[in-house]
Amino acid sequence: MLTRTCLALAFLLALPAMAEEAKKSPTPKELLAKSTPAEWRTPDPQNLVYMDLPQGRVIIELAQDWSPLHAANIRTLIREHYFDGTQIIRVQDNFVTQWGDPDGDDKKKAKSLGTAKETLAPEFTRKGGKAYPFTKLPDGDVYAPEVGFSEGFPVARDGKGGAWITHCYGTVGVARDTGAETGNGSSLYAIIGQAPRNLDRNLAVAGKVIKGMEILSAYPRGGEPMGFYDKPEQRVTIKSVRLAADVPEAERTPIQVLRTDSKTFAAVIDAKRNRRDDFYTRPAGKIDLCNISVPVRDPSKKP
Amino acid sequence: MLTRTCLALAFLLALPAMAEEAKKSPTPKELLAKSTPAEWRTPDPQNLVYMDLPQGRVIIELAQDWSPLHAANIRTLIREHYFDGTQIIRVQDNFVTQWGDPDGDDKKKAKSLGTAKETLAPEFTRKGGKAYPFTKLPDGDVYAPEVGFSEGFPVARDGKGGAWITHCYGTVGVARDTGAETGNGSSLYAIIGQAPRNLDRNLAVAGKVIKGMEILSAYPRGGEPMGFYDKPEQRVTIKSVRLAADVPEAERTPIQVLRTDSKTFAAVIDAKRNRRDDFYTRPAGKIDLCNISVPVRDPSKKP
Repeated sequence: MLTRTCLALAFLLALPAMAEEAKKSPTPKELLAKSTPAEWRTPDPQNLVYMDLPQGRVIIELAQDWSPLHAANIRTLIREHYFDGTQIIRVQDNFVTQWGDPDGDDKKKAKSLGTAKETLAPEFTRKGGKAYPFTKLPDGDVYAPEVGFSEGFPVARDGKGGAWITHCYGTVGVARDTGAETGNGSSLYAIIGQAPRNLDRNLAVAGKVIKGMEILSAYPRGGEPMGFYDKPEQRVTIKSVRLAADVPEAERTPIQVLRTDSKTFAAVIDAKRNRRDDFYTRPAGKIDLCNISVPVRDPSKKP
Repeated sequence: MLTRTCLALAFLLALPAMAEEAKKSPTPKELLAKSTPAEWRTPDPQNLVYMDLPQGRVIIELAQDWSPLHAANIRTLIREHYFDGTQIIRVQDNFVTQWGDPDGDDKKKAKSLGTAKETLAPEFTRKGGKAYPFTKLPDGDVYAPEVGFSEGFPVARDGKGGAWITHCYGTVGVARDTGAETGNGSSLYAIIGQAPRNLDRNLAVAGKVIKGMEILSAYPRGGEPMGFYDKPEQRVTIKSVRLAADVPEAERTPIQVLRTDSKTFAAVIDAKRNRRDDFYTRPAGKIDLCNISVPVRDPSKKP
């Protein structure tokens, strides 16, 4: 066993190493381990969608405050089992994975939308309205005057009161036809590549994938233009889509999301902006909105 | 057959529609169809790497002018058949697909590098040197003072003479250990998600995938931390890696790349910045470096 003198000596000898250590940026894991319970939120089960695929469960959080009409219509479609048995119809590399009724464009064959609406007001942009939380990022953006996070979603603002959820990796959007009101939520897409920010304000954002992106991003790309599958057998069939609220509490997937207005989220972003460790010797000093992923955890597991 | 009067009438009737048409941005396909042969280049076969996988061929163009030491070492490794039988060892979602010797980190088991060098000067940044072409983009960048394209590669500049190829979708980098000189090209990675620009200047860029990204991006993600496969049988084995120069000319894959200093490339970028058609009613008016893909064509096919 070490003597006290010996320990003190060891401490002194360790000082330069500790100073070196101090220059290192903490890892997200270290920062998350120090987070407080209040910094995590449990998404409203009315906004949580479980999409069960043969490869596992994808969980989507609906952007209720950003596209309420679409969220309501999607809930109706889910509750009337519209999505059960629909398919992954399109995977375009570095762009989107899209699902829905493969015959959705054929009026004669298309699955009935039940009591859901066939057209909806666009909800491409949120204009004013009630105040919403916004945590601004410091490094600017190529596409918009201001970007940051709001209630877990990556958001851009036009500086004139207009705001929208941006198309980042994992963003779930509402597929539509050429008319702005033709989207109804019966066909959705998730972004699986470099953020196609040119889609912003041209489509309604329904929400974002908070778990299971590694399933949606790894499907074979379709051989037809726009990534549609050329053979029907290539399409993966969706087992079921349910709202967490409709699943008995004991059977729900435990999930919490780090609050994007929390100190720990700010620290995670800062550590990523100024990443400095044995490997990264040249911190970027900057970060782009879509390079930030919002941490998610399973609260049933020990942190 | 239509009479002359009838044709004139048809022309007049068509005018409003033509004015409408004029507002639409041309598609890349339309622009490429009008390109001239001189706007396309055939990559030097000494810089073209064919990586043959069970799922098909991936073609990488080496960045000879940006990382010549790495290009030379990779050529040596290829010519001594180092890569044949190596594997896809890691697929981390929204980040990288990496290949090489699964036992590369174990000195006792690692495959011999043959006459290739084990360490190389980093080549993370190009400093001055001979002039190189640079086509600047107009919309700025979150990470660097200046971005654009050089000889097909996405490039950032620090405004002080330093330049580097950026980590965009499809960029191929040199995996390394913690020491800056520990990369030698025997393990490479391709970016398969949102551009991780924080890697810029921390790793050497070997080149970029110009064909076959849809293969590298669709492998199942690994279950271990950093996307390493937890079971050896999950790894895909590389059939062979060859230089186009070493393949008989008749057996090479015909491929041409649009020159990034051409008028047509500028027009493609502008059309994407200001996309306006029946679907996109709100052009972004901007574009980020990594949202631009450089067109590639098969010259043996009719344009």
